[in-house]
Amino acid sequence: MADHHVDETSPTLAVLPEYECWQLLRDHRPRLGRLAFVDAGWPLVLPVNYLAVGTLLYIRTAPGSKLLAAAKLQQVTFEVDDVDEVREEGWSVLAFGRLRLVTDEAEVEDIRQRPLRPWARGDRQHLLRMDVSVVSGRRLL
Amino acid sequence: MADHHVDETSPTLAVLPEYECWQLLRDHRPRLGRLAFVDAGWPLVLPVNYLAVGTLLYIRTAPGSKLLAAAKLQQVTFEVDDVDEVREEGWSVLAFGRLRLVTDEAEVEDIRQRPLRPWARGDRQHLLRMDVSVVSGRRLL
Repeated sequence: MADHHVDETSPTLAVLPEYECWQLLRDHRPRLGRLAFVDAGWPLVLPVNYLAVGTLLYIRTAPGSKLLAAAKLQQVTFEVDDVDEVREEGWSVLAFGRLRLVTDEAEVEDIRQRPLRPWARGDRQHLLRMDVSVVSGRRLL
Repeated sequence: MADHHVDETSPTLAVLPEYECWQLLRDHRPRLGRLAFVDAGWPLVLPVNYLAVGTLLYIRTAPGSKLLAAAKLQQVTFEVDDVDEVREEGWSVLAFGRLRLVTDEAEVEDIRQRPLRPWARGDRQHLLRMDVSVVSGRRLL
């Protein structure tokens, strides 16, 4: 899994060290990424606002959503990137792990105080946490 | 597959008609999207420059890349989105289909004349075409 994001044959792609992947995940603004998971054989990709706390990623979602269903899956991927088309430079980071529905009230309350907005508004939002097992990233030189 | 992108429970997400999904795919600037495919059970998501021609999506890639390998798969997904965090509005579109390596020289030459840049530069680029079977999209109101 660790080499998923590596393209050995392209001399203009540099692999990012793990600490830099995390730094990019934490510092990236806007706090917008894409969550991907497999549904009936197809990879689904949904833009989501997120919050990185340590090595955890938090996402809000609506009841009954595809994202909430993904919390049952073992393998989800979160992607962030920043590409400047004019300067032809950028980076992308992939985080691999699993989603969990956060039910602990203290944890929910803690995240509520922080800047995490849902992509779509809704009255009753669920809080999801992604426990990341591996990150990888690359920079376009 | 057609309802993959629909979140029925969220009143602030509106499903986009197919013609509008295609319009967004064709008009979106920069021509940057994300291609997703499943590799060893994990969904991989890679940012790519693309070109929409009719209902075909073209992407360039380097020899030996993960993308090139994905051309052997039956199920790949392409995503574009545009989210304005301040105004809290945006949209996202998913296209489902399969990738093929373009070997027809006339087709390669035709695309070479058009504005399609690879995300990473490289001498020998391969041209991939995604034959889209279904598109779906949603707008955040």
